[in-house]
Amino acid sequence: MQAVLAGDRLALARTLSQVENGTAQGRVALSGLFGHTGNAHLVGVTGASGTGKSSLVNQLARSYRHPGDGKLPRQVAVVAVDPTSPFTGGAILGDRIRMRDLAGDPGVFIRSMATRGSLGGIASATAAVVQVLDAAGYEMILIETVGAGQSEVEIAHLAHTTVLVEAPGLGDDIQAIKAGILEIADVLVVNKADLPGVENTERALRGSLDLAHPMPHHFIHHGQLASVPAQDDKAEFPQPIWEPPILRTVAIEGTGITGLIEAITAHRLHLDASGGWELRERWRLQTELDILLTNRLVEGFRSRLPAGVYEQALEDLLGRRLSPFQVVDKLVDMVG
Amino acid sequence: MQAVLAGDRLALARTLSQVENGTAQGRVALSGLFGHTGNAHLVGVTGASGTGKSSLVNQLARSYRHPGDGKLPRQVAVVAVDPTSPFTGGAILGDRIRMRDLAGDPGVFIRSMATRGSLGGIASATAAVVQVLDAAGYEMILIETVGAGQSEVEIAHLAHTTVLVEAPGLGDDIQAIKAGILEIADVLVVNKADLPGVENTERALRGSLDLAHPMPHHFIHHGQLASVPAQDDKAEFPQPIWEPPILRTVAIEGTGITGLIEAITAHRLHLDASGGWELRERWRLQTELDILLTNRLVEGFRSRLPAGVYEQALEDLLGRRLSPFQVVDKLVDMVG
Repeated sequence: MQAVLAGDRLALARTLSQVENGTAQGRVALSGLFGHTGNAHLVGVTGASGTGKSSLVNQLARSYRHPGDGKLPRQVAVVAVDPTSPFTGGAILGDRIRMRDLAGDPGVFIRSMATRGSLGGIASATAAVVQVLDAAGYEMILIETVGAGQSEVEIAHLAHTTVLVEAPGLGDDIQAIKAGILEIADVLVVNKADLPGVENTERALRGSLDLAHPMPHHFIHHGQLASVPAQDDKAEFPQPIWEPPILRTVAIEGTGITGLIEAITAHRLHLDASGGWELRERWRLQTELDILLTNRLVEGFRSRLPAGVYEQALEDLLGRRLSPFQVVDKLVDMVG
Repeated sequence: MQAVLAGDRLALARTLSQVENGTAQGRVALSGLFGHTGNAHLVGVTGASGTGKSSLVNQLARSYRHPGDGKLPRQVAVVAVDPTSPFTGGAILGDRIRMRDLAGDPGVFIRSMATRGSLGGIASATAAVVQVLDAAGYEMILIETVGAGQSEVEIAHLAHTTVLVEAPGLGDDIQAIKAGILEIADVLVVNKADLPGVENTERALRGSLDLAHPMPHHFIHHGQLASVPAQDDKAEFPQPIWEPPILRTVAIEGTGITGLIEAITAHRLHLDASGGWELRERWRLQTELDILLTNRLVEGFRSRLPAGVYEQALEDLLGRRLSPFQVVDKLVDMVG
């Protein structure tokens, strides 16, 4: 743990693996490191495949390392999560090759997560990995997710600032809208803005934003344990309202990156000034707590259930002798 | 309950609402009806917006009602699920207007589910609604889902046969592949096959299928309670392997619908002959059981937790006085 706090990259990589795999050592490390978290700005970058999202993340990392204008470079970590198919896992890793010029930089740490499994499992593992990097002193943590489905929405909830990436020519519709991710986007980027159709994509995004706007969207509780009473369920959206800007970039040429970094900084300042930072911290940590608590309850229940009982109950269900609710009643009554 | 079994549509609609809303009456009704389920063929139809999936579902329903060739018409139910944004909810309802010619047919029942909330909640509510329709005598139940994210994958797990709908011109990539839905598709349809680019879409689908093929994909356990030991975790894929066919349709003109129905029937016969039907029944019901059990454990825990304890634990977490794991330990120890 001290080695991680001291910036030992080997110790960091080892701890990240332990944490990602949910080992006992990982839990101990995380409990020790947790008190050192809370300093990083967590930026989620999400969008469908083909939007050039990975190039954009690479450019952001490069700019944070070489800010120019006499600004100080920031410590940057990139966490790439692909919660979908094992068959597409190679894409993210392939993109990482383009980061070779950053690979020797001790101020950059790149981690690809290949985790599969339940949604809660991925969100949990990502949260834990991000906490370790936060404790290790990385100031900007870029969480890159592929696609725009429910998984990405869940992972985006881990971030303070969510950047949604679109590109011209990916179809008549803005794919992201279908998955509700627009509702949680803080900064919208039309990448590949040198391609034809950029105005159409921008117009579609703007139209959808106007539609989504009536809702105080950041404070819908999406945690798995939504039934647990939360103090902030009725929280008012802090004034003033943040209007998500729509920016154009051409990541492979480095165009528009400065503007994007300014927007991310502006959003951070907005969160600080409006009380939004604290609300998001609360929401993030409550979501994580709820997922961990649910997993623990299920594991505890399983360990108390006599051998064979679950299997017998499943047979009663398959034989239509008991309904799903009746099976649940029976199992819960048995363990007490 | 007797009224639902006797085919009373008003009683059916009322029961579906009770079940969807998770009321006590709904639970009682479901337990009574569950013994009458297991007869319906559940067909999931999923695909991104813009693929013409709803028109396809309408045409399927029409063909099952007017089969021609001296075949008997089937009782058909359509369950349309939009687990994503409330802003797109109108699309499905709008499409339903095109079904006006089926609206007076007592052999067709259409239900749109506007459920939001947790993933488990949607899958659970959809499973329950499908069971009521099954008990009520609907032989073909078409479960239509929008998009191709994780939610759709979860809902597709409720079906015996999953139809994935694509269309030419929705981008260079096959969007569905990113979400892993290709791995659970039994029949692939390129709708709007009169548009240019149909060959490209077909080729992309075929290439992705070849990539996905090595995996005995239908028997990966996706249930939320994946840690519960399942008898079938090691189940072998039954021989012979089903090769998902790729079909062309133009739903608005009714072209290719007969071929699609034949493919769905062939898949049903394959499941019957290979033992796949029983394996899918087991998997479906186990997934449902696991979700219900998890929800019950969480609710039970919450009711036993003294007032204010959860909120205090959350404050300890926010103040970095305790790590997430330590908070979970504390809460679980308290309830015992």
